[in-house]
Amino acid sequence: MSRPVVVDSVAALRAQIRDWRHDGLSVAMVPTMGALHDGHISLVRMALAKADRCVVSIFVNPAQFAPTEDLDKYPRQLAADLDRLAEANAHLAFTPTVGEMYPAGFATRISVGGPSSGLESDFRPTFFEGVATVVAKLFLQASPDFAVFGEKDYQQLCVVRQLCRDLDLPVGIIGAPTVRDAHGLAMSSRNAYLNETELKIARQFNVILRKAAAALAAGGSEAAITGNAVSALAEVGFDKIDYVQARESLTLAPWRNDHSGRLLAAAWLGKTRLIDNIEIPSS
Amino acid sequence: MSRPVVVDSVAALRAQIRDWRHDGLSVAMVPTMGALHDGHISLVRMALAKADRCVVSIFVNPAQFAPTEDLDKYPRQLAADLDRLAEANAHLAFTPTVGEMYPAGFATRISVGGPSSGLESDFRPTFFEGVATVVAKLFLQASPDFAVFGEKDYQQLCVVRQLCRDLDLPVGIIGAPTVRDAHGLAMSSRNAYLNETELKIARQFNVILRKAAAALAAGGSEAAITGNAVSALAEVGFDKIDYVQARESLTLAPWRNDHSGRLLAAAWLGKTRLIDNIEIPSS
Repeated sequence: MSRPVVVDSVAALRAQIRDWRHDGLSVAMVPTMGALHDGHISLVRMALAKADRCVVSIFVNPAQFAPTEDLDKYPRQLAADLDRLAEANAHLAFTPTVGEMYPAGFATRISVGGPSSGLESDFRPTFFEGVATVVAKLFLQASPDFAVFGEKDYQQLCVVRQLCRDLDLPVGIIGAPTVRDAHGLAMSSRNAYLNETELKIARQFNVILRKAAAALAAGGSEAAITGNAVSALAEVGFDKIDYVQARESLTLAPWRNDHSGRLLAAAWLGKTRLIDNIEIPSS
Repeated sequence: MSRPVVVDSVAALRAQIRDWRHDGLSVAMVPTMGALHDGHISLVRMALAKADRCVVSIFVNPAQFAPTEDLDKYPRQLAADLDRLAEANAHLAFTPTVGEMYPAGFATRISVGGPSSGLESDFRPTFFEGVATVVAKLFLQASPDFAVFGEKDYQQLCVVRQLCRDLDLPVGIIGAPTVRDAHGLAMSSRNAYLNETELKIARQFNVILRKAAAALAAGGSEAAITGNAVSALAEVGFDKIDYVQARESLTLAPWRNDHSGRLLAAAWLGKTRLIDNIEIPSS
């Protein structure tokens, strides 16, 4: 166990990475918004398996929150995060301020079409612009060889892949399997918002999705199966279901069951919005 | 005089630049759409003064042309361009196809606010998105230390600076003074569209702008002076004047005469649209 170096300026980040490059070391990056949990730590492990040095960025990115969303109450716990990164042997934590990332006069936006359309974008229309812009900046600041993103945010992973392909960003994108608790609930910093009753309901999310994915694999009607999943989520106690949709795994185009598929969903418990997704098993 | 290496794939471009980097050589880039004239050659000279190696891209970028514009008739003359680059001792010409730059499924756009608003954008609303996207791609493909842009496309120069600052693109942007013919007409690939009568009129463009800039420097009313310039352009034979506007030199915000200023204009001769701009002399 060794404490990570903590830097909050782009200049210091680049200086450290330049030193590593000089020594012939490869670099993998794990972009996060902090409030680190076992899911993030699995990304760090994957980064360390892939490269000599692991950089973790911790930045709650205002550009990906709508004015109505939970930017202000999003959990911030830097000291605990640094402890977790030390346990995981991450080498550097990049903790820029909002002013360092978006100085006065900042005015650029990256929009990625293709996989960003629909799903999350139907409910968070500027979310992926915010994600794509900050991810491009982080990659250009750190110039990592690889970056690791969790499959938990599956649409985001597809958007980041498309971003790198389209802009010729020379960063290898690695998707890491979702880490789940003993009940199958996907790890998420937003799980911290849930009370005990909500937590019990949240743990049904993955159960209902797994059942629906199996039914899709068995060749049932997509509309009927996703419709049933929506009903089942409401029945166990979800307050509002934004979507349950089957998509083509790579492009996120509408799923045709001759392609590898992914079932994606978003649903609310009180004021907390949860997302999850699973592979549709090949039939 | 030595012929430039000509490559049309990103992979070959990166391989050559990797070799140069390995030898400790610095790289400057000159992005062009070909149809090279003395203005472009001055950019190459500036690049060579700044770095060990000069890469010139030649790519007529469809993303910055509107459907109604002159994409198809835009002059293409690769053999002559390569001769000119050989005379100028440029080291590499990057001549990608549209498919190499925008493969099937390409879906990403970069929009730069700030200096891109108004002026050209009022008449070519998607132009700077096309410019910003292709420039970001070229920079990420070639990773040059510097890039040289002409002041002839002054708003574009400001937009590219903002793009690099906002996205942390580590490329030093160098603005090069506009090259003019003996009559002061700014060099432009589109001058090739002009017949003899139009050419004579075009040569009045800079004369009228210089007079207006001097009047602004002397403290006259901005609205009256730019209005007079529009009238003068119409009088000498311009068919339509898109704009004549004074702006703050760095931000392109409305000019206040306590700041360094730039006078920018666009006007039509038949089907040819010309742009020009000059510094407002400090009073």
